[in-house]
This record gives sequence, structure tokens and C-alpha cells, in this order.
Amino acid sequence: MSEFTHINASGEAIMVDVSEKTETSRIAKAQALVQVNQLTVDSLLNGEQHKGDVFACARIAGIQAAKKTSELIPLCHPLMLSKVTVDLSLDEKTGIIAVVSTAKLKGQTGVEMEALTAASVAALTIYDMCKAIQKDIIIKDVKLLEKHGGKSGSFSAE
Amino acid sequence: MSEFTHINASGEAIMVDVSEKTETSRIAKAQALVQVNQLTVDSLLNGEQHKGDVFACARIAGIQAAKKTSELIPLCHPLMLSKVTVDLSLDEKTGIIAVVSTAKLKGQTGVEMEALTAASVAALTIYDMCKAIQKDIIIKDVKLLEKHGGKSGSFSAE
Amino acid sequence: MSEFTHINASGEAIMVDVSEKTETSRIAKAQALVQVNQLTVDSLLNGEQHKGDVFACARIAGIQAAKKTSELIPLCHPLMLSKVTVDLSLDEKTGIIAVVSTAKLKGQTGVEMEALTAASVAALTIYDMCKAIQKDIIIKDVKLLEKHGGKSGSFSAE
Amino acid sequence: MSEFTHINASGEAIMVDVSEKTETSRIAKAQALVQVNQLTVDSLLNGEQHKGDVFACARIAGIQAAKKTSELIPLCHPLMLSKVTVDLSLDEKTGIIAVVSTAKLKGQTGVEMEALTAASVAALTIYDMCKAIQKDIIIKDVKLLEKHGGKSGSFSAE
Amino acid sequence: MSEFTHINASGEAIMVDVSEKTETSRIAKAQALVQVNQLTVDSLLNGEQHKGDVFACARIAGIQAAKKTSELIPLCHPLMLSKVTVDLSLDEKTGIIAVVSTAKLKGQTGVEMEALTAASVAALTIYDMCKAIQKDIIIKDVKLLEKHGGKSGSFSAE
Amino acid sequence: MSEFTHINASGEAIMVDVSEKTETSRIAKAQALVQVNQLTVDSLLNGEQHKGDVFACARIAGIQAAKKTSELIPLCHPLMLSKVTVDLSLDEKTGIIAVVSTAKLKGQTGVEMEALTAASVAALTIYDMCKAIQKDIIIKDVKLLEKHGGKSGSFSAE
Repeated sequence: MSEFTHINASGEAIMVDVSEKTETSRIAKAQALVQVNQLTVDSLLNGEQHKGDVFACARIAGIQAAKKTSELIPLCHPLMLSKVTVDLSLDEKTGIIAVVSTAKLKGQTGVEMEALTAASVAALTIYDMCKAIQKDIIIKDVKLLEKHGGKSGSFSAE
Repeated sequence: MSEFTHINASGEAIMVDVSEKTETSRIAKAQALVQVNQLTVDSLLNGEQHKGDVFACARIAGIQAAKKTSELIPLCHPLMLSKVTVDLSLDEKTGIIAVVSTAKLKGQTGVEMEALTAASVAALTIYDMCKAIQKDIIIKDVKLLEKHGGKSGSFSAE
Repeated sequence: MSEFTHINASGEAIMVDVSEKTETSRIAKAQALVQVNQLTVDSLLNGEQHKGDVFACARIAGIQAAKKTSELIPLCHPLMLSKVTVDLSLDEKTGIIAVVSTAKLKGQTGVEMEALTAASVAALTIYDMCKAIQKDIIIKDVKLLEKHGGKSGSFSAE
Repeated sequence: MSEFTHINASGEAIMVDVSEKTETSRIAKAQALVQVNQLTVDSLLNGEQHKGDVFACARIAGIQAAKKTSELIPLCHPLMLSKVTVDLSLDEKTGIIAVVSTAKLKGQTGVEMEALTAASVAALTIYDMCKAIQKDIIIKDVKLLEKHGGKSGSFSAE
Repeated sequence: MSEFTHINASGEAIMVDVSEKTETSRIAKAQALVQVNQLTVDSLLNGEQHKGDVFACARIAGIQAAKKTSELIPLCHPLMLSKVTVDLSLDEKTGIIAVVSTAKLKGQTGVEMEALTAASVAALTIYDMCKAIQKDIIIKDVKLLEKHGGKSGSFSAE
Repeated sequence: MSEFTHINASGEAIMVDVSEKTETSRIAKAQALVQVNQLTVDSLLNGEQHKGDVFACARIAGIQAAKKTSELIPLCHPLMLSKVTVDLSLDEKTGIIAVVSTAKLKGQTGVEMEALTAASVAALTIYDMCKAIQKDIIIKDVKLLEKHGGKSGSFSAE
């Protein structure tokens, strides 16, 4: 049976000991997709500046959220992230705004949660800024795209 | 053309003025679905205590995140939430863990973002606690289920 | 059998609904006692400025902690405290530094936890500032002294 | 006369320079005791789930508070804790809930305050969850149990 | 002799009691001026997008900082700001970037510190984004421009 | 043309990658000047305790703000500061309160923003504590005094 690393033998939540783990370069890339309708697409494209500030706001919110991951996810370790980026792209035909985040660290623990938190909060910020136009926005497929570094090795989503 | 309430005529992000809005009872309910595989389902069910602490941890993370919404989403107003709940249920057959959050306020602005933030962070916490078992967990369909109160009236997802 | 207000019928942690509670003036007073030895007492008194800055630092830490209560205690509501004070007094004979905090609010929920958090963090700050002198400081008798306002009425410790 | 490391020659609070200190493995263990009455003991034991969620909530609050220590205690350094645990046990006869926390770091400064903050906030969370049942709960004997690592060497409470 | 409202008769810092103050509409406007050189002006204007993202980032940082005022300034009350805006303008000739912030509240205490904090942090963010180009940027004339509401009445800087 | 390090080729804000930068000792010193009038000077000097607690409060606020820099300035990296100090001096004749802050780190990125944030927030705290006496206080000349360490070498303001 697989093991929960965050739960001890008594079934209690713990923040695991990473002090003996090797310090390696670690990188993780994650995504969140925001599904909007045609009206929202048109509003975003109506005046490039609108998309500009909506996207700038989401990028910054995502970057700042990555730095708050250990405050938000109870068993995450505080980390000194060496890089965070959030990229956004709007597919006018499908109405999908793709949020892709990257987090990087030289340290003893992976940065998947930092990348996922950045993508989620950037997506929520887009939601917030567009919700006056459309009430049924959906954030879907929040997932890890790839990770490298650390004992468990590399991972890439199919 | 629809209007972004969070962007002014010059295309700049603003935190809108809610001081003239009526103070009403507002409630919002949101969801996030966490798709896990059979191995993770089995691990969660293996010893009820495991699911117990994973779910307790996610509930608390979601409740605390709701209170941090205005820190995370740049243009959200600080609010004095009067209630937050996060409910979790695991469907053993589909491997879907449904996170349903509720936020409540007597105030001048809606609480959709608070409910959505609670659901998202609870889902990310489940992800974090299960990621040692499964690397391809997906959080999908983060969306508003319903909201009541305020000028724009009630909304229910289909 | 008595009821936990923060746990629902399924045994799950919840942040209770206070939206129907009456808005009244609420005040709570709490204490924490820091037991130090004679060497620490002497160091505090050696140059009034030492006690001055140790106590100023503890007062400010306590006031700021009161404002962070809902971040620290998972099921506490965010509140707009209208007043916080932290008073400190050193009894040279017993080596007891008494921390007494007061929190005040006009609102729908009590402020006991805010007063207790202020007293605890002020006491921890004194501990931090004196720990280079003495390693076996004890913080004892953290408790509510009195509270007024709200449905459950007044309380005074014996 | 002993020296306050956090106060300079002019009597002013400073955050000391640790840049020349050796990076060693450091660990600290602290406790807080929560004294409850028989009614609270019975309520905690009435349905194992109650104790379960009260204790899970306190454990998580304690772990998260350890990560916030440098925000709460003004002169503490920000640290990248490598491990935090909070253990809770209820002695039915005495009505004492013992909170024992451990903090671990490979770094240049000790982690006593992190362990003490974790224990204090976990104890305050138990207080919060039980205060509807009993108004005169006391948190007592918050103290360091042991510490290892660093220039000042090991310490164990008697 | 004038009185410090944040210091009691014993010379100790306190967070004053505002519970008896009238709840009125309050607004404050503040500024900070960032003095940059011609090279920085040219870099900002070289590609409108550069100024765009530098200014968007500063606006958002300022808005978020206004919401953190009570965390930053020890004796400020937590407030539920109803509006915050940050406007930026670059005078190409003088090389002055003017940051003008506005904070609004219906409540019992003024919002000068919130407006001043927003302006200061927006200015620091511009500094951060331009410091790779120019090392001797100066932030000058951080001051209140005007305030309205509350017992002490209106104020306008000359 | 000079380059913005925090903006990528597409004009989007990014948190730059510091993982390949050398870990060196870095130190930065910054200032903020608070201009007050004679009445405020007299009030500060009237009873040494007044200046004492106003200055102690500002020092602590500045130190705590330095630790929050990466939360406030969106593209700053989280850092483990090894030292922070804030010194204050009042020139009775000119009415200028000089705030001088120092931040120190052994790490991969400079600490200018940490020093500048400490000085700014300490100055804002003085403003807050004196604003009941004088409404037209000005914070001027917030600037870097010197920095050492890192690839770009030393800098001293003229």
C-alpha cells in the first residue's frame, strides 16, 4: 500500500523532515485553464489595454501567491524560490485562457505546489476580473505539466 | 460591449468603490473536483484515519484561505466573513473528491471569490497530501455553484 | 452533553455562522505570566532602558498579534478590533512579569481569543528577548480574566 | 551582568547579525499544557471524532504558526524550517492536554521560538474549540523541553 | 502641549479605542514622487509596454499594500476599505513619476495611513523595477494631499 | 538601451531567475527623512519617554517590514535576512527625523529593497504616531545610501 508522506503512523498530519534530503535544482511547471464565453473574449480583445491589465494583474497575483504557498498549504515547507513566472495566452476560438506557471528552487524539496498555487491564483484573478461580464466561468484542468530534480526524478504529463 | 468593473476608462486596474452599495446578506457556494486514481482512493480508505486527517487538513486550509482572499486576489475587498464551510466527499467509483465550499457575509460586496478560493486551496491541499502516491492528479471544474444577495441577484449553475 | 460550536454533527471543523448574532459591545481581558529568575530580573532593571525596549517590543508584538488572530486560530472570524492594549509589570520579588491584554469590538462575536493571543505573543516576545540570559523561562497561567458583551454574558475569573 | 542579544548598547531593539554563525543542525522541543475540566474531557471523548477534529485542527494551527514565528516575534529571523510536528495527548484523569512541538532546521540560528510558538498556538486553538463548553480553561507551563545544536549547546528542562 | 493619541499617560504605545467614534464617510489622498534620470525615462518610454507593465505592477502593489496597512503600521486599526486607487503619471521633462493614491472607507477611523502606505509601496515597486537601470533613484515628498470626514474635519495640503 | 530585469521580451513582469548567481555577503543601507514641525519636535522631547516609545515602535515596524518585503514588492525574492537594524535620530533644529536602516544577507540577490522598505515603513510609523499633532508631515529623500556585494559591486550615494 502506498504511503502518505504527510501523515504519520498514527494518522496525524505532519510536516515531514527534509533536512537529510539532497539540495538539488528543482523546477516545476503547472497549468490552469480558464474557460470563458465569446462575450468575455470580445471584451478582453476590445481595446488591447483591457487584456493587458487583466493579464498583468493575474501574472502578479500568481507570482505573489507562489511565495505564499507555505502559508496556504498547511504542510508545505517555507522555500526561497529562485524564480517564478506566469504566462497567459488566450485562444480566441475556444475561449480558453491558458495559465502556465514555472517555479524554480535550489533546495531540498520540490516546487510542484508552488507552481500549482501560482497557476490557481492567477486563474482565480482572471475569474474575478471577468465575473462582472460572465457568471459561469470555469477553471479546469489545474495540473502539473512537468517537474525535474529531486529523488523521485522527472515527471511529464502525457 | 460589457464592462470590466475592475478596470477604469484608461485600462488600469482599480479596486472599485463599494461604499454606496447596499449592505445585504450574501452567500456563495463553489466547488472544485479533485480527480485521483484507484491507488489513491485505496490509500485514502485504508484506515479511515487517513482520509480523516487528509480531509481535516483540507477543510482547515480552505477555511483559512477564504479569510485570505483579499490578500491573494489583488482587487478583492477585505471582508468580515460571517461563515465559511468546506465539505468534502469521495466517490470511490469515479475517484472524484468533491470539494464544496460556502461563504457568507452581511456586507456590500459578494463573496464568490471567497468561496472559490476556499474550494481551490482545499483542493490544492488534497493534491499536496496525495502527491507522493500519484503524480498526475487533476483539479477540475472549479466553479461557482450558486450565489444569492446583492444587486445582480441570484445565480445557480445549471 | 455539551456541544462544540466549531464542530458540526459529522465531527468536522467549521467556522460558525455569526450573521444572525446581535452586534454588541464586547470586551475581553486576558493574562499571561512570564516566570523569570533573579539574573533576568537584574538584567531588566540594569538600565531602565533595557526594560523599556523589551517591554515596548512585547507590547507592540502583542497588539499586532491580536490583529492576526483569525490567521492563527483556524476557526476565528476576521474582526475589526476597535481597541487593543497590552500592559506589562514586573514583580521584582517573585520574578513574574504579568502581561495583561485587553481587546474591544463592537460586533457579532467575542474577542476572548484576540486578548489571549495578544497576551501569549507578548509573553513569547519577552521570552525571546530574555532567552540569551536564561534558558528555563516558563510562561504560565495564560487565561481569560474577564469578558463582557454577547449572549453568553459576562465572565470573571475567580 | 548578562547581556540582551536583542538590545544594543543604546538600549534599542535590534535583529542580531547571524551571518557569521555556523550552519548546524538545530532542533528544539517545547510544550504547552491545557488544563480543562471533566465536562470538557467528556465532550472530547464523546465520539472519538470530536477529539479527532479538535486535535487535527490544533496540530495544523501549530504547524502553520511555527512558519509564522518571524512575523509574530519581532526580532526573530525568517527561517526555512525543515520539519515541524505537534503531538497532542489527553490525560483523562488530570484533564491535562499536553501539546508537544518539535522544530528542526539546518541553519544559523536556533528554533526554540518556533517550537514555543507552535505549542502556544496549538494550545490557543484547543482553547478556542472548547471555550463554548468551559470558560475557565488555563494554558500553563509553556516552556522549552530541550534544544540541540548551535554554539550554546544542548539544553534539557529538568 | 499636544498629545500623542497612540501613547498613554505612562508613555506606552497603545492602539486607541475608536468604538465611540462616529461612523462617517472618510477619504484620503496621498502622493509619493519618484525621481528618475533621463536614461530611466527613455527606458520606460521605449516600447509603451515597458511603462505599461511597470506601472501595472506598481498600481497593484500599492492597492495590495493599502489592505496590509494595519499589519505594517503597528497601531493602525484593521479596516474594511471600500475603495483604493493608485494613479501614476510620468513627466518626461522632469523625470518625476507622480504616484497619487486614494483610500475610502465608511467607518470610525481615518484612512490617511492607508493612502500613504499605498503611495509608498507603489513608489518602492517602481524603484525595484527600475533599479537595474539606475542606482540613485530617490522617492521624495511622500505626503497627504487631502482628507475628508471624521471629527478633525477636512485637510488639504497647500 | 538599458534593460529592465523584471520585464521579459514581451513586456511582461517576471520574477527573475537568481539560481545561477553567486552566493555572497550582501549589505544595503537606506534612509528616509521625516520632516516635522517645531510643535512635534517639542512633543517628542517633552518627556523622554514619548520619543522613546515612538522610536521603539518605528524601529520594530521597520524591522518587521524588512521581513515582509517579498510580500509587498511583487517581484522581490523571499530572503532569509541575517540582520536588520533601524536607527533613528532627531535633529531638533531642522525638525528632521533621520531613519537609517541596514539589511544584511548571505545569498544570491541584493537587499536594497529590504533596507528601503524598512526605512519607509519606519518613517510611516513615525508619521502615524505624530499625525494627531501635525497634519502636514512630509517623508522625503527615501534613498539607498550604500550597498556592497553581488556582481554589480558597491554603490555609495554622493
